Amino acid sequence: MTAATTSAAWDQARLALWSRPHLERVEQALSGWVGVDSPVLLGEAMRYAVLDGGKRLRPLLVLAASEAVGGNVAAALRAACATELIHAYSLVHDDLPCMDNDVLRRGKPTVHVKFGEADALLAGDALQALAFELLTPDGDEVPPAMQATLCRMLARAAGSQGMAGGQAIDLASVGVALNEAQLREMHRLKTGALLQGSVEMGAACGTGVSPAALTALRGYGAAIGLAFQVVDDILDVTADSQTLGKTAGKDAAADKPTYVSLLGLEGARAQASRLLDDALAALDASGLQDTAALRALAHMVVDRDR
Amino acid sequence: MTAATTSAAWDQARLALWSRPHLERVEQALSGWVGVDSPVLLGEAMRYAVLDGGKRLRPLLVLAASEAVGGNVAAALRAACATELIHAYSLVHDDLPCMDNDVLRRGKPTVHVKFGEADALLAGDALQALAFELLTPDGDEVPPAMQATLCRMLARAAGSQGMAGGQAIDLASVGVALNEAQLREMHRLKTGALLQGSVEMGAACGTGVSPAALTALRGYGAAIGLAFQVVDDILDVTADSQTLGKTAGKDAAADKPTYVSLLGLEGARAQASRLLDDALAALDASGLQDTAALRALAHMVVDRDR
Repeated sequence: MTAATTSAAWDQARLALWSRPHLERVEQALSGWVGVDSPVLLGEAMRYAVLDGGKRLRPLLVLAASEAVGGNVAAALRAACATELIHAYSLVHDDLPCMDNDVLRRGKPTVHVKFGEADALLAGDALQALAFELLTPDGDEVPPAMQATLCRMLARAAGSQGMAGGQAIDLASVGVALNEAQLREMHRLKTGALLQGSVEMGAACGTGVSPAALTALRGYGAAIGLAFQVVDDILDVTADSQTLGKTAGKDAAADKPTYVSLLGLEGARAQASRLLDDALAALDASGLQDTAALRALAHMVVDRDR
Repeated sequence: MTAATTSAAWDQARLALWSRPHLERVEQALSGWVGVDSPVLLGEAMRYAVLDGGKRLRPLLVLAASEAVGGNVAAALRAACATELIHAYSLVHDDLPCMDNDVLRRGKPTVHVKFGEADALLAGDALQALAFELLTPDGDEVPPAMQATLCRMLARAAGSQGMAGGQAIDLASVGVALNEAQLREMHRLKTGALLQGSVEMGAACGTGVSPAALTALRGYGAAIGLAFQVVDDILDVTADSQTLGKTAGKDAAADKPTYVSLLGLEGARAQASRLLDDALAALDASGLQDTAALRALAHMVVDRDR
């Protein structure tokens, strides 16, 4: 996975420099928006689920894509936070006893361990609603047509033909022998849809973006969306729980199909590397100038150790 | 609750006549939109949760309010279905073992009894996303600004300062002595927010509606939203499970505060009657001509036996 790294226009130190102020804005915005004026325990559970944790990959993808197209800054910040809320709610529900029954997430007790199952369920539900609320502010900060487009993209990425659909396939696949096409379809929905959606939402914060650039960004999003899951499968067998901040080895333990079980460790690594190349090639074809952050994020997705 | 009935411009037979074609359109639309092209079990669970059951009160409120303001017909149908999806998802999650642990809903086994908890959880999640997807169609059927407004209203009605927030307060209130103001606040969020939101979303399908009319419709929605819960509390002690299509007496059994436990049966009935008067007075003050369906729906909410 390191061959392509040398071609990065930015190294990871440069990416960290770019990310820092963006992450600060995202954290500050989330802290001001999540669980505020909510009934006490629900608000606390929502904030616990969202704040002070996570790589914020989806927000960074939104912001980087928006910058690549010269997008509306206020819209991009809202879209960035909205994608993270959908991600966070999915983790809360995914960790529940009736799903993965996981007790550790981002190095902390999961939400239902801390607040009880009922409040965890409601916190997840409320986070999904809040995502759409963030995308539809009163006033003229974000043009109404842009609000509608962002809601449409997020709803599709999150719903039964996106993330929730992928999770349902995942549920039905325990102990089932999937071929690579079926595994790819599951992950395209389960993880890929929201990652790709994040890139597309960032692009939708721009106006007058060329169809070619939008197509290229979609291709970039699809490639890194799938790469993310391939790397997740690799880390599930190569990393320990402390580094991951969640339980390692649980997919293998649950007899879930993974890229590693299907392609072997080296095959999965080669696949991740190919997807990185696809993502970078899509950016090259986009005709956009300011894609360095997107390129560096693609490298980060593939080279991460947690 | 019958004194005010005689003042209805429409009797319930007339309401049924008005409702029939609207309900047919809603059922047909839901059937075409829900769980279609979804992974098999998830789609089935979504359809099971939504189709062939329920009074469709929220959709009727949307459609009646939209007609009162001469609203966009396509937008109103989508908004009608979206409110029902939010309602349906809330029932699926509410019935889960970690919440009310209910096995009977609309006279059928609840979704988790039929499909398992994990798929019930995901079906609820996917229904919420689908609600926002329905509100944001491609093309020019619904103007983008109207799409954004409808999403904003629905997100607020469903989220932590609406329905989900009310459910969290409800959870925290078992065995707790609430006064009437606290009980009202809980129900304003838990049930009232989405009912009021349905009326407001219907009104938002119109253009150029006067601020006075919007204020009046909000007042109407608030009154029937609360009346609905007062009547629910009455039916919980006066009706049997077969008529209700769900488990009767469960609030009392769970030691939950209700209007009946707080005001007594006659006091609760008087309260419902007062709220009906408030709702009708708001319509009188709206300056709108075509409010007969909204009036009849208010009567239906208060006079229903299930």
